[in-house]
Amino acid sequence: MSDTLKQLRERFGEIYDLSGALTIVEWDQLVMMRPRGAELRGEVVGTLSTILHQKWIDPAFGELLAKGAEETADRPDADPDKASIALATRERDRLVRIPTELASEMARHGAVAYGIWVEARKNNDFASFAPALEKHLDLHLQYIDRFPKTEHPYDVSLAQYDLEYTTAELNELFAELKRGFRPIIDLVSANPGAANDDVFLGHFPKATQAAMFNEFSLACGARADVWRLDETVHPFETAPSMDDVRITTRYYENDIASGFFGTLHETGHGLYEDGVDRALARLPIGHGGTHDLHESQSRMIENQVGRSRAFFDYALPIFQRYFPEKYGNVDAETLYRSANVMRPSLIRVEADEATYNMHIALRFEIEQELVLGNLKIKDLPEIWSVKMQELIGLTPPNDADGVLQDVHWSGGAFGGFVGYTLGNVIGAQLWPLINADLPDLDAQFAAGEFLPLREWLREKIHKHGRTYGTRETMRRIGIERIDPEPLRASIAAKAQEIYG
Amino acid sequence: MSDTLKQLRERFGEIYDLSGALTIVEWDQLVMMRPRGAELRGEVVGTLSTILHQKWIDPAFGELLAKGAEETADRPDADPDKASIALATRERDRLVRIPTELASEMARHGAVAYGIWVEARKNNDFASFAPALEKHLDLHLQYIDRFPKTEHPYDVSLAQYDLEYTTAELNELFAELKRGFRPIIDLVSANPGAANDDVFLGHFPKATQAAMFNEFSLACGARADVWRLDETVHPFETAPSMDDVRITTRYYENDIASGFFGTLHETGHGLYEDGVDRALARLPIGHGGTHDLHESQSRMIENQVGRSRAFFDYALPIFQRYFPEKYGNVDAETLYRSANVMRPSLIRVEADEATYNMHIALRFEIEQELVLGNLKIKDLPEIWSVKMQELIGLTPPNDADGVLQDVHWSGGAFGGFVGYTLGNVIGAQLWPLINADLPDLDAQFAAGEFLPLREWLREKIHKHGRTYGTRETMRRIGIERIDPEPLRASIAAKAQEIYG
Repeated sequence: MSDTLKQLRERFGEIYDLSGALTIVEWDQLVMMRPRGAELRGEVVGTLSTILHQKWIDPAFGELLAKGAEETADRPDADPDKASIALATRERDRLVRIPTELASEMARHGAVAYGIWVEARKNNDFASFAPALEKHLDLHLQYIDRFPKTEHPYDVSLAQYDLEYTTAELNELFAELKRGFRPIIDLVSANPGAANDDVFLGHFPKATQAAMFNEFSLACGARADVWRLDETVHPFETAPSMDDVRITTRYYENDIASGFFGTLHETGHGLYEDGVDRALARLPIGHGGTHDLHESQSRMIENQVGRSRAFFDYALPIFQRYFPEKYGNVDAETLYRSANVMRPSLIRVEADEATYNMHIALRFEIEQELVLGNLKIKDLPEIWSVKMQELIGLTPPNDADGVLQDVHWSGGAFGGFVGYTLGNVIGAQLWPLINADLPDLDAQFAAGEFLPLREWLREKIHKHGRTYGTRETMRRIGIERIDPEPLRASIAAKAQEIYG
Repeated sequence: MSDTLKQLRERFGEIYDLSGALTIVEWDQLVMMRPRGAELRGEVVGTLSTILHQKWIDPAFGELLAKGAEETADRPDADPDKASIALATRERDRLVRIPTELASEMARHGAVAYGIWVEARKNNDFASFAPALEKHLDLHLQYIDRFPKTEHPYDVSLAQYDLEYTTAELNELFAELKRGFRPIIDLVSANPGAANDDVFLGHFPKATQAAMFNEFSLACGARADVWRLDETVHPFETAPSMDDVRITTRYYENDIASGFFGTLHETGHGLYEDGVDRALARLPIGHGGTHDLHESQSRMIENQVGRSRAFFDYALPIFQRYFPEKYGNVDAETLYRSANVMRPSLIRVEADEATYNMHIALRFEIEQELVLGNLKIKDLPEIWSVKMQELIGLTPPNDADGVLQDVHWSGGAFGGFVGYTLGNVIGAQLWPLINADLPDLDAQFAAGEFLPLREWLREKIHKHGRTYGTRETMRRIGIERIDPEPLRASIAAKAQEIYG
């Protein structure tokens, strides 16, 4: 290995470790830390972020990357050093535009605003969160200002999540989705009595839920000596490395569905991190892939696996073992239909497949307007209500179930929501290809065998980490363009089956 | 504030935050992380340690400290900037002697060796841990070599823990302790039937223990919105800041005493961190004091409080509430006598007050010999047995209950054990002074009122953080020299009461 590449590997390792430390410190803040620690934790996050930022923008690092790119020009694109240099160069080009002070203030304010959001949500009081959000928006606009003018300023918001699509392209995609899903939403809204999810309601002690969820997660391929499952207000997945994967879920003791599907969703994310080739550790490409690809994996485990008919042949006896009184007389078909109840809901993370993307459309449209300056923070609750009514047919009774429901804005995260819809779309495009390679998938699910699916995903997607972007990963699998039709068709079929 | 002091405050803050990050990452490794993560976690710890070390040894920081010392020369010693500059200057002078590579290797190896120790202890196999310990000793000798020659090379080992006493002084102290405690150990060994701790044996579900221990910890003054109590193999306390205090304990379901006194012990440590003046946050003096002072606080809550007769008047109904069948017919006097059973034991952390310091003497003597090169790692199990027999009258049946019992060596920590004995000695010296100021202490304990004691400790000791060293803190309270007699006398009196 040349001296340049050796030096680059050292710097890559240092950045990987610092990011890992930040991941742990932030996970700890959300999962373990007592509330009083928030203010000084904000300082820790700020200092680590600043140091990390300094490491990235160091001019000597830029020179090494340029030299490294030259040295590896003749290698294949998948060569770990070449791919790492390409990714780090893109990331660095983005970061050099951001002054250290701005980056640090964004991180610091994220830690503080999170605490404010938790309180505001608990007290159902958007006004107390508004100033923190105002500041986040202001910082985000400063961020956008640092980039060359794009067709839409929101293109910059999207690009920070490595999304390879423009605002215009996505507005087209969402127009198509809104058109395509309108009849589905109308169908299920017209027949609300056709199915219900009472079977998920009852009394479910938290500890029993946790044990059962963990069992499902392990069955899907989580490694017991690598993964943790914990509780948070808002479920998430994070991984300091492929050897240390953490998912969280929530527990409603009167409703098991939320925690159950939340766990499956985060398990999908975790499998991506867990599956990255160990040889890529401490390289920029040594984490799970782009935001939308990542989301395709989580939605796949949640929906294509966890809401399939076959899955419940396997899951029923497990539900019965943990909750014998509740599920002793329930059959798999009932669980399946209940898992696929489509009923417009106020809460995105509990939305069914018919309306999920409308929740995203709402946020996507609001964020564009915020960034354009066409919308004031104080008007958010109102516009939220209006759009909620227009897209989903519901009006939130309060802020907690409306504009305050998501954690994202408390971290100043504008631009990432559409990744969820892209994930849905991509997952649905992948599914026929997977079924072509694994024709026995249903029989496997019914038997509780999920490792063949994990191996397919690992081989085609996970193990490469961030070697390829979204478009290239899909191209290598045989998908040339993003297409909402498979998603629409599959949901329409399910809606027809249950509500037709 | 002058520009120099402003710049120093920034650098102090950065160092405080990085140390806080390291604290969290290491706590997480011991408490939360799954085992597979250890190797890459070692890299994170190494990288953070390296960056922290670079911040400390930065020549510009040294110049700022010198300028700051000049600027603050006329201020009182307790001035936060002056005291911080003095402490940081001492710490930096120590650190500039250590090459970054050595510091980083020590930290990195600590993370790896911890995992090896856990396995070795579980498998009762010292040989599998020996190479890791060998490497720690080698690194420690390299460390010692970086300092000016001292009377005894082990003086350097002691100084790294901010211990203000030399090997020679401590050998005298331990000679006195060995002489003074011999008759006590003989007395209790001659009457083993005079007391027993059967009352702590039985069946105690882990979750119930945890809830009860937490209640005691809160009663002693732990703030619920600041503290965590978790489970580890080896109890410890750590605090990223005064707003974020973490203690751990262990749970033996057949023996409640270990976890109970462990919790009280760590609570004493936690109160020190919790009590540091919030205004000292992000300054070098903004943590709990020196190792031996710290230990005086933990041993005080464990022994002077938790093993007092009055304490059990308060504690009995709580034991009865959590474990009604077990404690329904027990009286406070029985709990008190059981808590003070003196019975030579193989395990330091479970040792009674009569033999505790002999456990330390053993380690103190072994470490001196290791550092002098008079003792080989492979001979440790044997020398351990010999000294255990000589000092305590017992021979360990295996490595797990002998040389592998403590976590310290897995982190390469040589020189710190004597802090525990110094803590015992100092705590016993403080106790008559506290009782003079708070004559109602027994009545307060019996009523479950521990806040007056906490306030005394906070006012005299905790709130100052690391403003003063051990000797100066004691001098300000009215103690001119370290003296083992109060400790000996108090244990001798208790031994006489129960075994006489």
